[in-house]
Amino acid sequence: MTETSLKSWQEVAPHLIAVAAGREAADLVIRGARVVNVHTREVLENWDVAVAQGRIAYVGPDASHCLGREVIDAEGRYLIPGLCDAHMHIESGMLTPAEFAAAVIPHGTTSMFTDPHEIANVLGLEGVRLMHDEAALQPVNIFTQMPSCAPSAPGLETTGREITPEDVAEAMTWPGIIGLGEMMNFPGVIHGDDKMLAEIAATQAAGKTVGGHYASPDLGPDFHAYAAGGPADDHEGTCEADAIARVRQGMRSMMRLGSAWYDVESQITAVTEKGLDPRGFILCTDDSHSGTLVNDGHMNRVVRHAIACGCDPLIALQMATINTATHFGLERELGSIAPGRRADMILTSDLTELPIERVFARGVTVAQDGVIAVDCPHLDWPAHARDTVKLGKVLEAGDFVIEAPEGANSVTAKVIGVVENQAPTKTLTADLQVADGTVEPDEENDIAQIALVERHRGTGGVTNGFVSGFGYKGRMAMASTVAHDSHHMIVVGTSRDDMALAANRLGEVGGGIVVFKDGEEIALVELPVAGLMSDEPAATVAAKAGRMVEAMAECGCTLNNAYMQHSLLALVVIPELRISDLGLVDVTKFELTELFEEN
Amino acid sequence: MTETSLKSWQEVAPHLIAVAAGREAADLVIRGARVVNVHTREVLENWDVAVAQGRIAYVGPDASHCLGREVIDAEGRYLIPGLCDAHMHIESGMLTPAEFAAAVIPHGTTSMFTDPHEIANVLGLEGVRLMHDEAALQPVNIFTQMPSCAPSAPGLETTGREITPEDVAEAMTWPGIIGLGEMMNFPGVIHGDDKMLAEIAATQAAGKTVGGHYASPDLGPDFHAYAAGGPADDHEGTCEADAIARVRQGMRSMMRLGSAWYDVESQITAVTEKGLDPRGFILCTDDSHSGTLVNDGHMNRVVRHAIACGCDPLIALQMATINTATHFGLERELGSIAPGRRADMILTSDLTELPIERVFARGVTVAQDGVIAVDCPHLDWPAHARDTVKLGKVLEAGDFVIEAPEGANSVTAKVIGVVENQAPTKTLTADLQVADGTVEPDEENDIAQIALVERHRGTGGVTNGFVSGFGYKGRMAMASTVAHDSHHMIVVGTSRDDMALAANRLGEVGGGIVVFKDGEEIALVELPVAGLMSDEPAATVAAKAGRMVEAMAECGCTLNNAYMQHSLLALVVIPELRISDLGLVDVTKFELTELFEEN
Repeated sequence: MTETSLKSWQEVAPHLIAVAAGREAADLVIRGARVVNVHTREVLENWDVAVAQGRIAYVGPDASHCLGREVIDAEGRYLIPGLCDAHMHIESGMLTPAEFAAAVIPHGTTSMFTDPHEIANVLGLEGVRLMHDEAALQPVNIFTQMPSCAPSAPGLETTGREITPEDVAEAMTWPGIIGLGEMMNFPGVIHGDDKMLAEIAATQAAGKTVGGHYASPDLGPDFHAYAAGGPADDHEGTCEADAIARVRQGMRSMMRLGSAWYDVESQITAVTEKGLDPRGFILCTDDSHSGTLVNDGHMNRVVRHAIACGCDPLIALQMATINTATHFGLERELGSIAPGRRADMILTSDLTELPIERVFARGVTVAQDGVIAVDCPHLDWPAHARDTVKLGKVLEAGDFVIEAPEGANSVTAKVIGVVENQAPTKTLTADLQVADGTVEPDEENDIAQIALVERHRGTGGVTNGFVSGFGYKGRMAMASTVAHDSHHMIVVGTSRDDMALAANRLGEVGGGIVVFKDGEEIALVELPVAGLMSDEPAATVAAKAGRMVEAMAECGCTLNNAYMQHSLLALVVIPELRISDLGLVDVTKFELTELFEEN
Repeated sequence: MTETSLKSWQEVAPHLIAVAAGREAADLVIRGARVVNVHTREVLENWDVAVAQGRIAYVGPDASHCLGREVIDAEGRYLIPGLCDAHMHIESGMLTPAEFAAAVIPHGTTSMFTDPHEIANVLGLEGVRLMHDEAALQPVNIFTQMPSCAPSAPGLETTGREITPEDVAEAMTWPGIIGLGEMMNFPGVIHGDDKMLAEIAATQAAGKTVGGHYASPDLGPDFHAYAAGGPADDHEGTCEADAIARVRQGMRSMMRLGSAWYDVESQITAVTEKGLDPRGFILCTDDSHSGTLVNDGHMNRVVRHAIACGCDPLIALQMATINTATHFGLERELGSIAPGRRADMILTSDLTELPIERVFARGVTVAQDGVIAVDCPHLDWPAHARDTVKLGKVLEAGDFVIEAPEGANSVTAKVIGVVENQAPTKTLTADLQVADGTVEPDEENDIAQIALVERHRGTGGVTNGFVSGFGYKGRMAMASTVAHDSHHMIVVGTSRDDMALAANRLGEVGGGIVVFKDGEEIALVELPVAGLMSDEPAATVAAKAGRMVEAMAECGCTLNNAYMQHSLLALVVIPELRISDLGLVDVTKFELTELFEEN
């Protein structure tokens, strides 16, 4: 199977009409279903659906006049539209688009609105295009949101490539591009940053949707200024007031349940308790780890959760189907079981638990009883996309030596303080011993070394510092080329020898995550595509990631979500202290800072 | 005042942001309003709105940081979005776009989705463009739907010009074009007519909205086949089942209250009683006569009526604002009071009676207390658009002579039977006397003559026949160049001399409606633009039209809506018997038919 061909409604209209009129044969007729109509918000008992050329030809009380080459008796099960994920990053699953699709199709996800922000930081516009091209091969709908913010923090980090307003304008001409990815630089929008506004303008001029990201609890003038800038949605709300404020501004509130995001329960009360019109509310995942996909589900998990939070099942389904389609200007293309739309549907016997019993995409059965029934073709990724970890040299323990000021016996150093279950870090300080001119970490006080290893241009650059919070004991090191947002390599360790081993190992395998203990590799997740993604199946990657978490624990780590904390240590847009290829960053002031306190 | 300039959101975004943030001054601040939020469906008490460059910069609880050059205290009145008419024909008001706009702005209509179907039949694509160009001059939003069906009935009538799929494709490139006008040829769609499907395809390929018109009570396979063809809405429903059926198919149900259409009360129960999601339901007028505009209102009349029918006022307002905007892909441009949108708003002190106290369009006060406060510029219509009544000769009584078969003393003739308050006619027959070889009308049995006078190409062609139902007494004639759909000239009379006088009079004035009695003109409505529209104000036209109705009564006519019945006598798509330039048409068989029955 190669590229999935789906003709436009207008191309197949003559045939759809003829099928609906009973003059030509449908490819598939589903009879006797309880059809969930997300336009009227009702269940239509004992309805039939006829499909032709991948699209719905007929939906109504009786398709007996529509001859079908294949006829399925729904036996009274519900037929619901395929689920839509309104905002997500494929890279978060550490999977390529093909393997991500293969993982979520059995869960009933048939449309994804994806922002390939991570690969954009590594491979720029070309990386976005590669994701877009693999997406286009899939049997389900993967739309691309053009990343808006690479680098996330200009001047504080160096990305592999940068995204420009010209790149945005070019991307808007691609088939399948759906809009601009989350505009994370909300201070830039509020203060009228030319580049950010040019990207928004290019998107609006193309008639496409500008994704928002307003990660602040402030709902005063700054919030209103951001809304006036053009973002059409936001998924960063965390409480009911956030959700209501966004919809009142004519933005859509995207409520997310990701692997580590729990923002549905706290916001859906805007609908379930405050009784607001639900059309402005949408469900999404934002970030799903491969383990979540393998063990828990995808959008079915989100819809099920919304229902468990007290949302009417039909409204919850609207929030994952027609609301999303309407938001992106696609309501005549997908998101409902209605004539002309892509025949993306799910058979389920229960609207509360939402078991995904059979999934159709474009009229084809793509999964049944949790098992995928279709190929998800891989792109032939170019060699340089698999060769993005450029260290420029073989790293040695000496690269991780932190030299003390001349003559010092001890120093007071800034330490990145990881806070369990929170994204922000704390700026700590610690008095550290000096041996032979080298500042040493302090296992007793949980102070390890951290290094940001430049990996895009092979400069050999290493930024060294200290981190606290993981609880590592004994000789170990952990390295990851998933290192938001510019995705260099973050190495954390108690042993400079193991840090060098870990860094070099990722250089060998083209990126990923590795854990060394006592000089031995005890876990490895290879992510050879851009150093971010594997093209192995989700179950394989999830198993390796699970082993990686175990390995962290074996090194003494007890932190919840410890790997995510590791991967965010270079995220120089979230306070307080981070590390980048340019140095240690004080994110309360958005400026570089010295490692040592002046005495 | 010349062309209204409105910059795009992206062009003014830097300023809107600065106003919302409090850095730059707004043009207008409205304080202390009860803002109706059609996104959340709620009333926000004591909210403020700031406007800049014609768009909303801020809407929220406190705009005190938004300096305004002008500040209006709403004094607790409601601030609602300007009203949208989702489907209408400007020509039905017998007014040019400028005068139509001037008539409806004081009623709070700020957006119109107009199908210039009538002028398309007279002047083709150029006529549509002229309407579009005058529309673009107005201080409110008039979007053009490209007419789809000229001629309405190919082979049964000759229009002034025809619309082709190529015309449709060209029109889709115009600024302000919003989609395809109502696809009236529903049998054509159902049977896969190439031309109709090509027009739909051109519209869909342009990403625009295909207007529907399914004028049949049949909700079986034909209806489903029509829905599969692509029309996205329909305003021809007349009962609750019609409305529900359309929305279930993913079409929007447009419920109309026109001057002679009363389809809201019978359909809105789908929402008010059946409890369906209201987002798929929209209000419109379709056809408003100038008298209705002058005396009763426009969309405010429709919304008020919907509320009187039991609809929640906020839902009724959604049906005339955001639902419409969303349908046409404009929800980030208009239809709500939200950042970036056109500042089209109404101040009203009551949400049930909906008095229109002040109207803003693009941030400017365009009407206050029912009085327009802004110019509605006229296009400089080209001379040939005012010279469309081409009779080719001076008509004489002899042109209206109906010759009997040779030697006959009497004949049995088919007669178009007008049925009060119904659009369909009946095919009657009558035995008529012959005098000097000429068949005579029969006043006693209410049988007058009817003639269809060719007026587009000056062929001098006259089709003669008989009509019953008006009740005309004595010597009279009435002529009209409003003669749906191909808009030749319909002359009805009891006197062939007066018929000639009436026809020639319309030739002199360039079209309109005229009534002659006993050889004297007793009423005249000049419609010089395409023979369809006046560029005089609505009040003037309404007064003349009122006089015309009186004149019909003076001639003995007691029929309700008699003028409309007159103007529809050539509408060869509605059964049973009609007249066209090609002859008498049996619309039950869609074929030409003989005037005389065979004996």
